[in-house]
Order: sequence, then structure tokens, then C-alpha cells
Amino acid sequence: MSKSLTHVRIVGAGLIGTSIALALRSQGVKVSLFDSDSRAQSLARDLIGDQSEGDLLIEDLCIVATPPDAISAVIAAEVSRNPSLRVMDISSIKTKPLLEVSALGFDKRFFAPTHPMAGREVSGPESARGDLFQGRPWILCLDGVDPELADMTGEVISLCGAVALNRSVEEHDRAVALVSHLPQIVASLLAAQLSDGQGSDLELAGAGLRDTTRIADSDSELWSQILAGNSSALRPLLINLQKDLSRAIEHLEDPAVMGQLIADGRRGRAMIPGKHGGQARNYTYLAIVIDDKPGQLAAIIEACAAAQVNIEDLAIEHTPGQQTGLITLAFSPEDATIVSSHLEKEGWKVHPSR
Amino acid sequence: MSKSLTHVRIVGAGLIGTSIALALRSQGVKVSLFDSDSRAQSLARDLIGDQSEGDLLIEDLCIVATPPDAISAVIAAEVSRNPSLRVMDISSIKTKPLLEVSALGFDKRFFAPTHPMAGREVSGPESARGDLFQGRPWILCLDGVDPELADMTGEVISLCGAVALNRSVEEHDRAVALVSHLPQIVASLLAAQLSDGQGSDLELAGAGLRDTTRIADSDSELWSQILAGNSSALRPLLINLQKDLSRAIEHLEDPAVMGQLIADGRRGRAMIPGKHGGQARNYTYLAIVIDDKPGQLAAIIEACAAAQVNIEDLAIEHTPGQQTGLITLAFSPEDATIVSSHLEKEGWKVHPSR
Repeated sequence: MSKSLTHVRIVGAGLIGTSIALALRSQGVKVSLFDSDSRAQSLARDLIGDQSEGDLLIEDLCIVATPPDAISAVIAAEVSRNPSLRVMDISSIKTKPLLEVSALGFDKRFFAPTHPMAGREVSGPESARGDLFQGRPWILCLDGVDPELADMTGEVISLCGAVALNRSVEEHDRAVALVSHLPQIVASLLAAQLSDGQGSDLELAGAGLRDTTRIADSDSELWSQILAGNSSALRPLLINLQKDLSRAIEHLEDPAVMGQLIADGRRGRAMIPGKHGGQARNYTYLAIVIDDKPGQLAAIIEACAAAQVNIEDLAIEHTPGQQTGLITLAFSPEDATIVSSHLEKEGWKVHPSR
Repeated sequence: MSKSLTHVRIVGAGLIGTSIALALRSQGVKVSLFDSDSRAQSLARDLIGDQSEGDLLIEDLCIVATPPDAISAVIAAEVSRNPSLRVMDISSIKTKPLLEVSALGFDKRFFAPTHPMAGREVSGPESARGDLFQGRPWILCLDGVDPELADMTGEVISLCGAVALNRSVEEHDRAVALVSHLPQIVASLLAAQLSDGQGSDLELAGAGLRDTTRIADSDSELWSQILAGNSSALRPLLINLQKDLSRAIEHLEDPAVMGQLIADGRRGRAMIPGKHGGQARNYTYLAIVIDDKPGQLAAIIEACAAAQVNIEDLAIEHTPGQQTGLITLAFSPEDATIVSSHLEKEGWKVHPSR
């Protein structure tokens, strides 16, 4: 790297901007944080201990951390006070902001499109945390970007503890349309159908419905810009989904077509890679019935630690009307064998499931 | 109750039939278990320690635990060997089997439609467990059913540890169409879209995509019958979804329409009741960064137990390419205050989130 970051200007004190500010501050980088919403700016500055009085006119790097539709207006304002502006953006879509920034006449070499894959269903500086990006993928689209800006961008990602992944702008927008924007629309459309349901019907809701609609809790203002802004990558996926849905409705009475629909879903799901970016792992699951009270979960997990095994995943299943719970733990097949006999010896009700 | 169950015949040694058998056996009820698949029958009999040699000609109750399309054929065969047959079914749809059983000329008073809400993504007797129904809702549709059969049905549910909920056949089919069959179709249709995705795109998949498609792993043979068999309750929901999807595609570039779509989803999701059948609770979530290695999860949960708080929910977020993890714990607001300061004192990186 040609030089190290000493001072970064961040415009946008939402979840992402404030989290980047927290991460950079903890690594000794001076941060000046701005937001058009004075409450957000004030809260975020309190959080990061920012003293923007000594604000420099020309900083090393300006990170634009606004919703995507505001990026070009922010750059227009910033470039008027600093003609040698160098920008890193963090928005969830890449093609549209890049077009808008180019339309301003801003030199594309000084605009580094990036995207940290670390969203949450909660938003605002109050939800920020300095470790939000630890170990998460952070996509960089650095084709044609000035090498010094590319270095600074890489340094921000590294200081945030994220894992850099290089993609073209088009590859990025196509990928997030499939793995993020399509699921968001589907979950929201599904959850919206519940508004017409009766309370006695919804009483029967289980973990399946909850999981399928979890991301429907997302922020509508931000997501309206993301979905509308990536419409060209999203449209073919939605049209394909629409075609499949129409076919399902048309052949709803035909078990063969319904069976094929479920089988196609299983095959698609098997393509999702597992933990740590590797291939999907073949976990062994152990189901354990516990009393739903303090101490039970602690005791079972302590027993796993005593057996020196690594819990790969954990789920708690709640039960309506009764204070019992079901804990499902995932292990490697080897660890499952070890821990299963260990837990059974200790008197736990262990049920291996696959 | 007029009499107690002493012997039950179960036809269908899948997940549900074998789990009922395990639960009844553990309560001292004699069980004779049958399946047209000899491997499933043999495995299930080994599991429950069944000795069907001394099989009686006329048992107290016959539980038909086959996929829905097989119910009427099973009853036709059973009634030919036992003209005073009394049946309890457990299938996921209620109207269609009842019509088919009536079409046989079988007296509806001796057919008790029920449905344990305890499915899993795994199937077969190898996945069975005697506590599968503990604390789970079990729907009964007992309008016009013979009182003695109704009593026996209630006794089975009670012996399985489940919570009985009364619904009409129509109420049942409408409710499960919304809370179970619609999410299944949606999750499967969404997951099927991934088959066209590139590996480098799917590398970016996060918890959102995983949760939204989890139930797409379900069994295609069973679900083809469920979906086709409940088509009349499901069709209006799918047509409404289709309408909403078409509108989304039509107005994809319009942030106002997209924002409304997300807002509608939030409102629908808020209608799902929380744990233990009550209203959705206002949990406080604490996010804690840990090293993804044995002992860390144990230590954090032990610390919660020491603070005498009840963990209401728990999620583990995995990170690609790096061995760190994020644990999110849900508490009542009061418990969150207690445990948060306790954990921080112990040096944990605690981040309250809402």
C-alpha cells in the first residue's frame, strides 16, 4: 500500500456508515461523520466519540454511506468543496449509482463501488456496531479504479475485519438480485398474505412460516430504493418466478406437477454453500427435549463443551401452551457420535435425526 | 372417558405413525404397527419393540398414518377384516380424505379427522421420536364423530403430550393453506430459482436466503399429495400472491410501490403470534461476537444462567472464510438489562440491538 489511511470522511450515519466509523475509530483512524438527519448525526457522533471541529478540508477518502438514491447528490455537494474527491460507496446496488455518478461528470476512476454483505433487519446508528463486518464478505468492483483509491478501499475493508471479494459491477448486481433481492420480495409478498388471515388460523403458525418470512421485517424506505434500483437484474428472475407460480396454479390438482415443484426446490436449495464459504456440509443433527427454563440450555451446552466437540449450528423450537422446548444441535458426524453417547450417559433425551 | 386405550393398530410406519407408536408404547399401550413398505415396517417394529404375533382381530382404535391419498384404500382394506372399525387419521389435509372415506360408504361417525402440527423436513421411521408431539398443537375436527371415538382420539393426543385444538374441517384446511402450504410452495418456488444461479453468485448467500428456503428441503412425494389435496383452499391464496407479484413486476422501477410492498410484508409478519401461543413478544436482542470454537458458546450461555435469566431465543450467524461467529440472544427487556451488564463485566462484546 502506498500510504495508510489517517482520516476518513463518512457521509451517512445509518447502520453501515456508523458501523464503519466505529470499526475505523477502534483502529486509530480519525473519522468525520455527517448526516443530513441531525438526530442521526448527533447520536452517531456520540457513539464514535467524534470531534469534527478540527475537520480537514481535504481528507484521504470519503465514504458515501447513504441509501443508493442519494449517492450522486452527495458526491455533487462533496466535489464542490473538494475537487480532488475520492469516493468509496457501500450501497446494495452498483450499476445505477455508477451511471448517476458518471452523469455528473465525476471521474469514475475516483469512485470505488463496494458492498459489505452485512445488512440487518434493524437500521439506524443505534443498531451500529464496530464488529458488524467481522468475517463477512465485502464485495469490491474495482475495474478501472485509480490504484491509490483501490488501496485505500482495501484498507477500509481490512480494518473492518471483512473478507474482500472481487466482482464486476454487473456480476454484483446479478448475484445480489438472486441471493438477496429476490428472497426479500418473496418473503415480503408471502408475509403480506397473512394480513388477510384470521387470528385462529395464525395460531397454528410454526417455525416454517416464521423462517420463511423473517426478512420481511426489513426497512421499507431503504429496500424500496434497492429493489427499484436493481430492477433490470431482478425483472428476469421475477418473471421466471411468475411463470413457475402460474404453472403451479394451473396444475394445482396434479400431484405429479406439485411433486416436481418440491423436487426442483430441493435441488435449488442444495446449491447454497454451507458455513465459512465452503460446500454445504453434511451435518448430523441431535434433537434434545428440555424444560424451557433457565439453566437447561446452559447445562446441555456445557456438556457439549466437556465432550470437546464443536457445535456447528443450534436451533430452539418453541411449543405453544406448554413450557417445554426442543434444542436441535448440529455436529460433524464424528463429533455427533462422541457427544451423543456422552449426553445419553448424562441422562439427556437425545434423538439423532440424520 | 368411558374406557382406556389398551391396544392400538397403526397403519403407516412413517415419521408420524412411528412417533405415535413410540409415544403410546412408552405409556404402556400395546401397539401393532403395519406398513406396505416391508423395510419401513421392520425398522419401525424394531424401534418400538413391537411383537405383532399376538395381533387381535378387533382393536380399540385404528390410526391411519399414511400419506393422504392412501387413506381411503387403507380403510377399505381394514373394514373388510373388522366391520366395526374406528379410525383416527393424522393427515395434513382434512376435506379431501373425508370425502373419499364417505364415498366408500364408511360411516363418518367412526372416522375422526386430526392433524398433529409436528412435521419435520426429514421423514421415515428412522426420524421418529416418541416426544415429537410434546407440547405441539394437535388439531381435532370432531363434528359429528361418535363420542367414544372422540374420547379415544383425545386420549391418544394426551398420551402423546400434545395440546388439543378444535377446528372444523374447513377451518383446518383454510388455516394450514395459509400458515403451512402457501409458505411451502413459496419457499420451493424461490429455491428452484437458485438452480439457474452461478456458483460465484451463490457464494454471497447469507442467512436471509437460507431461512427463506429452509422448508424447501421437504419430502416431494408427501407434499405433492398435500398441495394437490388442498388445492381449493390454496388456490385463492396463490391467485392473490400472483396478483401481488404481477403488480410488483409491473411497478418494479417505482420506489413507492416497492416501499408499499415491503411495508405490507412487515404488517403481515407482525400478525404471527409469538412463543407459547401468546401474542408476539417484544424481545430485546443482544448480539455477541465470539470465536467460532468449542467452549465459547458454552461459556456465554453459562454466564446467562449465572445471571438467572431466561434465553427466549438464540441464533448463530456464520461467517465465510473466517473462524468468527456472532451469537444473538433474545431476552425479555428486564432480563436483557440484567444480563447485558453482567456479560459486559465479564468482558464479552455485547451489542444490544433493539
